[in-house]
Amino acid sequence: MDNLGIVFLSEVVGTAILVLLGCGVVANVALAKNKGFGGGFLMVTIGWGLAVYCGVIAAYNSGAHLNPAVTLGLVASGAEEFGSGVPVNIISILTYIAGEMLGAVLGAVVVWLAYKQHFDQEPDPANKLGVFSTGPAIRSCGWNLVTEIIGTFVLVLIVIGFSRQGDTPGLAALGALPVALLVIVIGTSLGGPTGYAINPARDLGPRIAHFFLPIKGKGSSDWSYSWVPVLGPIIGGVLAGWASIVLLPILAA
Amino acid sequence: MDNLGIVFLSEVVGTAILVLLGCGVVANVALAKNKGFGGGFLMVTIGWGLAVYCGVIAAYNSGAHLNPAVTLGLVASGAEEFGSGVPVNIISILTYIAGEMLGAVLGAVVVWLAYKQHFDQEPDPANKLGVFSTGPAIRSCGWNLVTEIIGTFVLVLIVIGFSRQGDTPGLAALGALPVALLVIVIGTSLGGPTGYAINPARDLGPRIAHFFLPIKGKGSSDWSYSWVPVLGPIIGGVLAGWASIVLLPILAA
Amino acid sequence: MDNLGIVFLSEVVGTAILVLLGCGVVANVALAKNKGFGGGFLMVTIGWGLAVYCGVIAAYNSGAHLNPAVTLGLVASGAEEFGSGVPVNIISILTYIAGEMLGAVLGAVVVWLAYKQHFDQEPDPANKLGVFSTGPAIRSCGWNLVTEIIGTFVLVLIVIGFSRQGDTPGLAALGALPVALLVIVIGTSLGGPTGYAINPARDLGPRIAHFFLPIKGKGSSDWSYSWVPVLGPIIGGVLAGWASIVLLPILAA
Amino acid sequence: MDNLGIVFLSEVVGTAILVLLGCGVVANVALAKNKGFGGGFLMVTIGWGLAVYCGVIAAYNSGAHLNPAVTLGLVASGAEEFGSGVPVNIISILTYIAGEMLGAVLGAVVVWLAYKQHFDQEPDPANKLGVFSTGPAIRSCGWNLVTEIIGTFVLVLIVIGFSRQGDTPGLAALGALPVALLVIVIGTSLGGPTGYAINPARDLGPRIAHFFLPIKGKGSSDWSYSWVPVLGPIIGGVLAGWASIVLLPILAA
Repeated sequence: MDNLGIVFLSEVVGTAILVLLGCGVVANVALAKNKGFGGGFLMVTIGWGLAVYCGVIAAYNSGAHLNPAVTLGLVASGAEEFGSGVPVNIISILTYIAGEMLGAVLGAVVVWLAYKQHFDQEPDPANKLGVFSTGPAIRSCGWNLVTEIIGTFVLVLIVIGFSRQGDTPGLAALGALPVALLVIVIGTSLGGPTGYAINPARDLGPRIAHFFLPIKGKGSSDWSYSWVPVLGPIIGGVLAGWASIVLLPILAA
Repeated sequence: MDNLGIVFLSEVVGTAILVLLGCGVVANVALAKNKGFGGGFLMVTIGWGLAVYCGVIAAYNSGAHLNPAVTLGLVASGAEEFGSGVPVNIISILTYIAGEMLGAVLGAVVVWLAYKQHFDQEPDPANKLGVFSTGPAIRSCGWNLVTEIIGTFVLVLIVIGFSRQGDTPGLAALGALPVALLVIVIGTSLGGPTGYAINPARDLGPRIAHFFLPIKGKGSSDWSYSWVPVLGPIIGGVLAGWASIVLLPILAA
Repeated sequence: MDNLGIVFLSEVVGTAILVLLGCGVVANVALAKNKGFGGGFLMVTIGWGLAVYCGVIAAYNSGAHLNPAVTLGLVASGAEEFGSGVPVNIISILTYIAGEMLGAVLGAVVVWLAYKQHFDQEPDPANKLGVFSTGPAIRSCGWNLVTEIIGTFVLVLIVIGFSRQGDTPGLAALGALPVALLVIVIGTSLGGPTGYAINPARDLGPRIAHFFLPIKGKGSSDWSYSWVPVLGPIIGGVLAGWASIVLLPILAA
Repeated sequence: MDNLGIVFLSEVVGTAILVLLGCGVVANVALAKNKGFGGGFLMVTIGWGLAVYCGVIAAYNSGAHLNPAVTLGLVASGAEEFGSGVPVNIISILTYIAGEMLGAVLGAVVVWLAYKQHFDQEPDPANKLGVFSTGPAIRSCGWNLVTEIIGTFVLVLIVIGFSRQGDTPGLAALGALPVALLVIVIGTSLGGPTGYAINPARDLGPRIAHFFLPIKGKGSSDWSYSWVPVLGPIIGGVLAGWASIVLLPILAA
């Protein structure tokens, strides 16, 4: 398999695991009759953080972006190659994003299978959609966009910080823990208003799955909001990439 | 002691500690009058994750499978020797599984002793069985099997991922932390429908202990469900072993 | 940029991230309609601990004080240069503290933007102030001061302990985790009476922001209490610096 | 200062910090009007685990026993010197235990100061004692003893396991994390019936402080139970020391 093939497969598998475990914790907490029902927001944030952890372990060979906002943030930061040694160009960028999107759709399908009976017995269609995609606590696309931009900015800036510093963590085993901690804290601290998509693939992929899957008693896929958790993270990631250039003297070791 | 003797003793002790601490957190949360009563699902998942952590520390010398699904998954992946340097053959496979089963029974007996009074004063027989073995939130053996297959697939695939990558964690001290994190997230994210056995020994061993122990006011050991958390994890583990061959280009460093 | 310029920018960015994520978790838990509303004190302590983690990652190049009590504690301990290689003198001390204060104000402004609608819809002015600054559970400036002194003493003594021991953690990636764990436990264990400011900049900076920002329906900035979370941490930090001299035989490797 | 002097001071400071932060989290959760009031058992276990973490960091130079059950368990395991390089003899054993006891009393006094107003306003004397010392959920000295023996056995066996294995963690920074994880899981999983003293000094020292301190509205110090959390941990620790000899082939790398 050539390098781009490995990148594609790696991003598919990693993002699928990320979405499976991330959307999985929401299913456990939100869908009726689950053992983790009502388990609380802290459990959701820890589940999502460790979901990213596992996704990163699985996507070792592509540098584990798993998120178009990270891919585009690295581009904006002026990187000449991705962590995987693949040169930055339009083909490689599209390869990453396509893998991320496909993986996110697949992961969402598996969540539905794992929680099939709980989807069937859950009465509220909004809870079903909430397992797949984020929605705002108070709907106002402008402010929701601001929150997503801020959350993704922090995510991508610190991720770039990790990659620039002397004792850079690897992507395997404990080296993937810092990213998990970062995702946990973005959840606890900036996840209140919008449920912290901070990743266009994580939100749009499962929304597409929700739209096509034969989920019993499902409601709208809320396409009118769907652009916010796509555009916000892209803006936040690109701004963080640019900021990392300005902050080079402090972020580089 | 020869190598297989060490493997056997190591798996017995490690799995006993895993089950003691894992079933222990369920006892604390589920049995009446405990200080941790009603402590929530997040506490259960953290307790189980760190139970595995301690079991791995204690079973350092056998490679710390502690789970027939891991043993069989490694076989399916085409491994020629187990982490302990013991060659893969029918004798060594049975030694691992026998040690895991015996350890699980012993660990469950000690949980009963540690929580003896709380078992005596707990009115609900289902809560007593729930300390020992998993049961489904919504009973449907087919879908319950699917959930256990998915959970164990993720477990074994990522465990193999850890073992293939460059900075492989050891099994001692912090090197055992990645496995704990993995078990925590499988609990938070895929544990809702069936209580995530993901380990035939962890479920069947304590069920046998429940059947034979003179637990005051106990009810059925629910043998009609008992095959699901045995077969599901075995299928999931073997599928993950096979998948690791297909995914070699992305899982190997 | 000269060394002091880097120190200043580094402390600004690091403290801004610390306050954004730290005050952010309080906003999520305390302000109406958030997804993390009522998420509990443990979530707050984990959020604050990981907020410090991210701040330390971003402020790698200044040694990541992010807290005047740490800066002054290091001075009291007799340090000749700060972690960043900058000599300890009145100019460098003021540079650190100015960066910390400015960063704290900026971080608080961004929290307000991220949670803008929730501030608007929160009815209780005390909850709004609580996102920015600490307040006592039982008001008594003397005893509140004692609690802040004790909490900051532990913080700064252990931080100095980290820096003196053989396998000193770095400030990047996993090396920043010990400080996060320390901040989590000070929250869980000494945060009950006053909300653990343990950092004059973390408390005064956001209070200034609260005073000037056009927050809808805001109340008093409670200046009558504001000196406690400034003076207490300074006293605690300086005492810890002195104690580290007395305890040199046990703290140094 | 000679070696035994350093050991003594190190154990005093480390155990004082352990008890301050450990009993502190109980105060936060149990005493009226605290910000962490009702924070749950998981928060207590995390607080205690990280309390041990900080105590270990501070007691680096004595090998950080902080617990007579650890000291005596190491003696029973046949160790010839303690982690600190001090030979095992009756003088050094007594030096460790004296330091642990004194530190525990001091730590408890500081907890009382940090939470002074909350002690004053707490109506229930049992909650006040509960901050200092453990008590059984269901009183039955025999079974309570069994639970303490099991919990301490696991603690000391795994601690000895850490010290025997190849990549032994240090006592500084991240190297102290495994012990914290171990203490967390003993709390979540074996702490339900007795509140997991698992350390004679941690229980008896604060009980002595409770007896002598002028705590407003305090009740009995419950001396009739006080021998259980002293004798149980000693038995458990010594049994673990002996077991570590039998298990040498699996615990040693």
